[in-house]
Amino acid sequence: MGRPRTPLLDRERIATTAMQLVDEHGDFSVPKIAKRLGAQTGSVYHHVDGRDGIVEMLRERIASAIDHRTLDVAPWDMALDAWARSYRAAFAAHPKAIPLLMTSPVRAPRVLEQYERAVTLLLDAGFALVDVMPLIIALENLVLGSALDLAAPETMWVVTESTPTPQLAEALTAVGEGRADRAFEVGLKGLLNHARAMRVAD
Amino acid sequence: MGRPRTPLLDRERIATTAMQLVDEHGDFSVPKIAKRLGAQTGSVYHHVDGRDGIVEMLRERIASAIDHRTLDVAPWDMALDAWARSYRAAFAAHPKAIPLLMTSPVRAPRVLEQYERAVTLLLDAGFALVDVMPLIIALENLVLGSALDLAAPETMWVVTESTPTPQLAEALTAVGEGRADRAFEVGLKGLLNHARAMRVAD
Repeated sequence: MGRPRTPLLDRERIATTAMQLVDEHGDFSVPKIAKRLGAQTGSVYHHVDGRDGIVEMLRERIASAIDHRTLDVAPWDMALDAWARSYRAAFAAHPKAIPLLMTSPVRAPRVLEQYERAVTLLLDAGFALVDVMPLIIALENLVLGSALDLAAPETMWVVTESTPTPQLAEALTAVGEGRADRAFEVGLKGLLNHARAMRVAD
Repeated sequence: MGRPRTPLLDRERIATTAMQLVDEHGDFSVPKIAKRLGAQTGSVYHHVDGRDGIVEMLRERIASAIDHRTLDVAPWDMALDAWARSYRAAFAAHPKAIPLLMTSPVRAPRVLEQYERAVTLLLDAGFALVDVMPLIIALENLVLGSALDLAAPETMWVVTESTPTPQLAEALTAVGEGRADRAFEVGLKGLLNHARAMRVAD
């Protein structure tokens, strides 16, 4: 038995394993990562900045799929629109990570930089300072709720004869397939229209 | 050792244990429920309609905290507003259940009845049949994203000197505490304004 050609542990393999665990179970633990990699728990801690550091590696991985150049689009409302679409697609690939990332403080530098760009975009567009974060957070809540919805089954409401819900059945038939996309369009349009009305200056 | 005064297993205790597991870990398994209750896995299945049946018991429990009388409020936009607030509060108490319930088909009769009432409300208000589900789903995506956001730490963005994000820091200071509530207000107002514009007839 020679030495393994690749090191058992490095930051990338730890992040990949954590992502697999989160995609399967919605959470990870350092001992579980160690077990999958055939390593000691203490050895994993040697490579990362604690559990929080692993969460931030996951955040950076998922956020790297968001096209941050969308925030350079003009005018500002088209930038938000494009950012929201790219943001939803990035998280739709990892729906089970959403609660974990939404409830852990953001420390990842590249993600903080993306927020800085979004804040700057809205300030440059004339929004009042006090309105900027509520608008960004409202957009994120819609985007992440809609990303979770993309992971829902096509038949989300099981209408049976034992529970008569005729109007629900009709409304579901009318919308047909693609209800998740249509719902996202309604939500995004509503929020962007409201943002246009909130803006202070031109 | 006499017989226990309460039965080891009944539907309520199974649902309570499943809810505890979901609140802790975001998911449950029937063997884990059995272990916590000191019972055999097969005995748990004897009381419930499979894993899906347990998911629906959780859905009914959480949804029972939504004040469904809000859907009787007039006019329709005040009804949606009140429903959305009550809906958010109910799920904010169980944020880790959100992904599980959003990705499992709705079968619970009382929950289907609540959808039927919401659909009827919007049809009576003059919405086109094809618009009803997209509007309800958009509202739910916002509500559930905002419920998850209520579980976020007060300091969600850790701004440090190593990552200069001065505009983000200013925007966070300006909004202060209660950012989750302010973001929800922005999102809800935007969606309801958009809904008023979508409505076909008066």
